[in-house]
Amino acid sequence: MSAAKANDRLIYLALGGAGEIGMNCYVYGYGKPGKERLIVVDLGVTFPDMDGTPGVDLIFADIDWLRERKAQIDGIFITHAHEDHVGAVGLCWEELGAPIYARKFTANIARRKLQERGLPDNVVQVVDAWPAVTKCGPFTVGYVPISHSIPESAGLVIDSDGGRIVHTGDFKVDMTPVVGDPFDTALWEEIAKPGVKALVCDSTNIFSPNPGRSEMSIGPAITDLMRDCKGMVVATTFASNIARLKTLATAATEAGRTVCLLGRSMQRMTQAAMETDLLHDFPATISAEDAQNIPRENLMLLVTGSQGERRAASAQLSQGSYLGLSLKEGDTFLFSSKTIPGNEKGVIRIMNQLSELGVDIVDDDGGKYHVSGHANRPDLETMHQLIKPQFLIPMHGEHRHLREHVKVAGLHGLPGIVAVNGMMVDLSGNQPKVAEYIETGRTYLDGATHVGAMDGVVRDRIRMALNGLVVVTLILDENDESLGDPWVELSGLAEDGRSDASLAEIMEEDLSQFINRANKKTLADDVKLEKELKTIARKTAQAEIGKKPEVIVVISRLN
Amino acid sequence: MSAAKANDRLIYLALGGAGEIGMNCYVYGYGKPGKERLIVVDLGVTFPDMDGTPGVDLIFADIDWLRERKAQIDGIFITHAHEDHVGAVGLCWEELGAPIYARKFTANIARRKLQERGLPDNVVQVVDAWPAVTKCGPFTVGYVPISHSIPESAGLVIDSDGGRIVHTGDFKVDMTPVVGDPFDTALWEEIAKPGVKALVCDSTNIFSPNPGRSEMSIGPAITDLMRDCKGMVVATTFASNIARLKTLATAATEAGRTVCLLGRSMQRMTQAAMETDLLHDFPATISAEDAQNIPRENLMLLVTGSQGERRAASAQLSQGSYLGLSLKEGDTFLFSSKTIPGNEKGVIRIMNQLSELGVDIVDDDGGKYHVSGHANRPDLETMHQLIKPQFLIPMHGEHRHLREHVKVAGLHGLPGIVAVNGMMVDLSGNQPKVAEYIETGRTYLDGATHVGAMDGVVRDRIRMALNGLVVVTLILDENDESLGDPWVELSGLAEDGRSDASLAEIMEEDLSQFINRANKKTLADDVKLEKELKTIARKTAQAEIGKKPEVIVVISRLN
Repeated sequence: MSAAKANDRLIYLALGGAGEIGMNCYVYGYGKPGKERLIVVDLGVTFPDMDGTPGVDLIFADIDWLRERKAQIDGIFITHAHEDHVGAVGLCWEELGAPIYARKFTANIARRKLQERGLPDNVVQVVDAWPAVTKCGPFTVGYVPISHSIPESAGLVIDSDGGRIVHTGDFKVDMTPVVGDPFDTALWEEIAKPGVKALVCDSTNIFSPNPGRSEMSIGPAITDLMRDCKGMVVATTFASNIARLKTLATAATEAGRTVCLLGRSMQRMTQAAMETDLLHDFPATISAEDAQNIPRENLMLLVTGSQGERRAASAQLSQGSYLGLSLKEGDTFLFSSKTIPGNEKGVIRIMNQLSELGVDIVDDDGGKYHVSGHANRPDLETMHQLIKPQFLIPMHGEHRHLREHVKVAGLHGLPGIVAVNGMMVDLSGNQPKVAEYIETGRTYLDGATHVGAMDGVVRDRIRMALNGLVVVTLILDENDESLGDPWVELSGLAEDGRSDASLAEIMEEDLSQFINRANKKTLADDVKLEKELKTIARKTAQAEIGKKPEVIVVISRLN
Repeated sequence: MSAAKANDRLIYLALGGAGEIGMNCYVYGYGKPGKERLIVVDLGVTFPDMDGTPGVDLIFADIDWLRERKAQIDGIFITHAHEDHVGAVGLCWEELGAPIYARKFTANIARRKLQERGLPDNVVQVVDAWPAVTKCGPFTVGYVPISHSIPESAGLVIDSDGGRIVHTGDFKVDMTPVVGDPFDTALWEEIAKPGVKALVCDSTNIFSPNPGRSEMSIGPAITDLMRDCKGMVVATTFASNIARLKTLATAATEAGRTVCLLGRSMQRMTQAAMETDLLHDFPATISAEDAQNIPRENLMLLVTGSQGERRAASAQLSQGSYLGLSLKEGDTFLFSSKTIPGNEKGVIRIMNQLSELGVDIVDDDGGKYHVSGHANRPDLETMHQLIKPQFLIPMHGEHRHLREHVKVAGLHGLPGIVAVNGMMVDLSGNQPKVAEYIETGRTYLDGATHVGAMDGVVRDRIRMALNGLVVVTLILDENDESLGDPWVELSGLAEDGRSDASLAEIMEEDLSQFINRANKKTLADDVKLEKELKTIARKTAQAEIGKKPEVIVVISRLN
């Protein structure tokens, strides 16, 4: 590493992931201010909900800032294959154009994302683990294996003349991760030796006070459970948690149960793990069809839908049957997972449906059957002490996580900065310094289109859902005289109101009265007319049903 | 108690609350089958959400079955003043017409509910605690004080010639509840002595394995926290938890802080508690205006909004300021509450906004600053053993809670039945027996109207929110020939699609082509025409933006 050139600067910019958990997208730059060569770390998605994003398919970071600097981007580095890190590769790649780098398993998933969108998958280049490095513009990037809840996660060592950055990606300190590389303390010490400028660090579990537990630790309890169960066992977890799949499948086999995988992502993830030679000693599995012929006490279904997703295998099983398999009294359903905030109602719905079928539910309550994939507070402190950076930049957290992470680091003398999405940080000096505020936001994949979060499209949906809708149509002739009365259609509104008569008819009556009294000037003015009709429709609705609906006015002029 | 008359039966029917937590509404009847005299226990609401009930104000049980039997209803008994037990009194009373009975504090709240709807509040009769009883048709009903998280909760002793029923209402086993009556073991033993036919029992916390903790137990930790805080302290909890308000206010006073109550329900609940002489030794409070003149280290705000409600005081404070008070770095915000499943995102949003202001957040994580108001599993077992009923009917729970409660009772030899909403149970024999299945459901308060959950009104809102909306208008003359082209308006849809041109224009073009080619018969047939126009609009949208929107077609015929 040579020293930084005069006037060159090293920058960090989160476009997603700093101020939320999800939608990760980080940018590093080095060069003359405004002319930096750039690399992107992760292109993830976050998931919509009915509250704020009804009808939306996926959410990813607004990459306008990057698009305008397309020529400056030298590469895209994906740390691991979770959707919040790789999910937007297929959605953003065309606009960024740079080569994508990833380890083998992650590359396999990234290629699938590109194929799904009809994009060339050969832009994805497989990189080897550290000490191998990739030269990319002014940067040299190394992939250091790190333990997490998916195979081949990597922390990145990002070197430039501006100094060394360690970008942890998602991680936990796990010495026995079942699948993949254990956390390697000695390796991180070696990486830290030349001196690290900034540690850009996962913050997800900063509020968890106890040391994290290993993936290996839950195996015995799961095996015991599978043995004790009398009927069929169904287990669900994130399909990408290959280690967990192995733990569950192995436990099943030890308990004399044959394993059947259900759900598209279960198939896809195990396939990717096989293709990349990661999944060894995985028990033989059988198809749903063959599973029907096996006594239920000798069967374990390993299914998708741990977060209560409406169309996943778990939801379908809870509603009766799926691919000829159905649950009944005496069967057991294991949630080997944690419910992500916001998904509680969906998970609880499935639990109650299973309860109605007489199925016993075992969940993680108490941590017996699930461990987190993220470093808890003491493990984060371990990482701080291993890397000994000049300063800390917490990432992968909501504001409260980032702030707490800086506080915790401060307790043992490590300075840090809360840098949220859009806050460009200049890392060149001895202290991080806010260089600039970039406008950031969210982009929605909505059907086949990309919609900006501030475009108003989704806002209009929310308003229709909350307020209901009135459509008013009015036809005027060439003399601006109405042909017939205004016509009203309702959607999402009660038919009758306080007058115990049709709301639509009362509204038509009120609108007609207005039209009959309106002067020529008003009738000739579309803008004014629309405004008046809207106001009357709202007022009538308010009086009749106590709601102010959205109103669409269509004025047709015959001429 | 005399013996049951031949052919008379004793029935139990949940219309709400059995199969969900919320919207409690239970019916007991005694008499000839089909001619039973009825009493109603609780008339509660549950709260809407964007997922399933956008735009709805409140949800309560469908009381059609009761309405049709209005003449058979002798009384309505409210166990306590939580919204899920008393909240629908103002919405349902007119249709039921019977007198409402409640203890003093509950009656105060019930009267307010009636006043809000312009109904006579003198239908509410205050009852004294057991051994006082109320004769009501064939029933004699006693209110037995029981500890819960609101003052004057009562378990009901419901006697008739059919035998004694103990209906616990919501309860916990708390010997030191801070406000109100402690749990009285001896009293329940005495009540059990003559023999109890059925224990109808709270099931909320059946999955909590440890004995519940007393309200009194959290006082010291809260006092310590208030003392250790440097800046202003804000605390939030349910306003109806008068004991908690007292604990918080007392802790504040002991820590040299003056208390200021913020939020409408904080005012209303403390007022009701004062009016009913329940709140003794509550520290003097000051107005928001006066609070502005007090050093922040000498102030505690006690605010509404523990569940992240968007308009509550806590949300407003987190967004900047409320009534001239604002939070800043060094202040502390205490959630002395548990987040109800489904409210996580709202609570987390407030936490992050507070974090942005530099406010330290203390939540219940670990149970230091909050205790539940419901009996945990061991406490429920205590109740079973105290009452020694012939059988158990679990209530106040989702299906999984009811089922688990029956299981737990079974372990110590107490038989039980999972009786969900609509399952009428005949209690006359030695074993409970399903007598009939009643159609039940939910009613929505939507603005000023009552809307049935199955009416399709809310379904249409959800569809518009998920799919967006297209309005197609077409004008035909007296010869069924179109005047001008079809006109399209969009709401909640992207303006441009795959063709990089206006979706509305492409759709109008496709619709025009159809109209131009359509035969006379189609053009004369509104139903057919509407169907075709809808299909084309959807097909175009699917091709252009990958979504199938809702379509409203307005065909105007001039003649």
